[in-house]
Amino acid sequence: MIKVTLIGSGNVAQHLFSAFNKSTAVEIVQVFSRRKETVSNLIPFDKITDSFEDLAEADAYIIAVSDDAIAEVSAQLSFKNRLVVHTSGSASMENLNDDNRKGVFYPLQTFTKGKEVDFKSIPICIESQFSEDYNVLKRIADSISDKVFTINSGQRRALHVAAVFVNNFTNHLYKIGSDICQEHQVPFEILQPLIRETAAKILSLSPNEAQTGPAKRNDQTTIEAHLDFLSDENHKNIYKLLTQSIQDNGTKL
Amino acid sequence: MIKVTLIGSGNVAQHLFSAFNKSTAVEIVQVFSRRKETVSNLIPFDKITDSFEDLAEADAYIIAVSDDAIAEVSAQLSFKNRLVVHTSGSASMENLNDDNRKGVFYPLQTFTKGKEVDFKSIPICIESQFSEDYNVLKRIADSISDKVFTINSGQRRALHVAAVFVNNFTNHLYKIGSDICQEHQVPFEILQPLIRETAAKILSLSPNEAQTGPAKRNDQTTIEAHLDFLSDENHKNIYKLLTQSIQDNGTKL
Repeated sequence: MIKVTLIGSGNVAQHLFSAFNKSTAVEIVQVFSRRKETVSNLIPFDKITDSFEDLAEADAYIIAVSDDAIAEVSAQLSFKNRLVVHTSGSASMENLNDDNRKGVFYPLQTFTKGKEVDFKSIPICIESQFSEDYNVLKRIADSISDKVFTINSGQRRALHVAAVFVNNFTNHLYKIGSDICQEHQVPFEILQPLIRETAAKILSLSPNEAQTGPAKRNDQTTIEAHLDFLSDENHKNIYKLLTQSIQDNGTKL
Repeated sequence: MIKVTLIGSGNVAQHLFSAFNKSTAVEIVQVFSRRKETVSNLIPFDKITDSFEDLAEADAYIIAVSDDAIAEVSAQLSFKNRLVVHTSGSASMENLNDDNRKGVFYPLQTFTKGKEVDFKSIPICIESQFSEDYNVLKRIADSISDKVFTINSGQRRALHVAAVFVNNFTNHLYKIGSDICQEHQVPFEILQPLIRETAAKILSLSPNEAQTGPAKRNDQTTIEAHLDFLSDENHKNIYKLLTQSIQDNGTKL
């Protein structure tokens, strides 16, 4: 069994904990949490520590904390020359303290508190400072996911920016759709099958092939009618910019 | 059995045809197609017509053609005072010719040629000029879908605009995500589980509750780093506008 210690008790740490708990290849040695009670429902109390001095030996230490805490937390580790990785999409591997061997273990998914996810289908992007550590990370990742990718820091940054577009910004478009429905007394649930199918479609078609709508077919009459219909200036601006972007994309092909 | 005639042979017409074909409450009397061969694989040849004069009697005529052809097609019908509906989200019911009783039968979904859809879960929005026609439309819709909604023209327009945001614009964000991946040699498939989960999440959370990311948490350092990373001016502008919109939304709460 590979011995893993989790540092952190937030959303990502808790989801990783559940996944490792089901894995037969990984043993969770300890969980570090400043507030022990947040993980006490997950793990026997004697395996939780709130002291960096108490961290036992492990094959890998996975720091699952917010981006701006990574440097500070990794600097507080009292040992040297062990494998220490973070789970962030945007933080550089270099944010980790130089005393230990560095790596990244980035599960690319949006985690919701309390909502089970099927880790097998979650891509895990791994990177290591030293090639001899790569295999350890690979074995840990393989034990919980069927989709493990070797991704360097530059690629990971690209993925993280792309993820902002397909997750954060997409969700904001859902919000605008929901606002428009609410303003006109239409139940937002009517749009949910469309939202699901829009996401499902790009499993078989490229986003370029899947594009439909007034912007794509240069239907200026409908575009004008929609802009006229929208009462919110911000919604109008977003409608215009994205319509223009779809149209420019069409002419570039 | 309710007798239905389909006018049109495009994507929506073909998907409606397959759905009605499985229904035990609806009988397809005829399909009108200017190019008979486009539907000859779906229906016996003697039920296809390309002449408006040949249209037999039916309880409802469903015009599934492009928005700008609805007025012209409905004007060419040679009978009077029958129930004639269109399937468009954006065209007004009034686009239909006055000679017949008007209605709308709008399945709110994105249809892909050749890709089967489960019609049972597709919302159908119905509207009728006369209340006595409402029940006919309701029975037709109920026979293929579990989600039938009574939606007036104003609400339908709102739904259609909202659908542009959650479908057309969302798909364009997928396209941008895919472009960013391609530019940095990362397989786009890594983002697909995230895309699916983003869509699935709003079945249990409102889009407002589901919002995460640097804009939501006012993480200006990450936002600046992302803008710096993006090489395409258009991508930068979309990033800025949507980030601003998420942040303004946060302050309004």
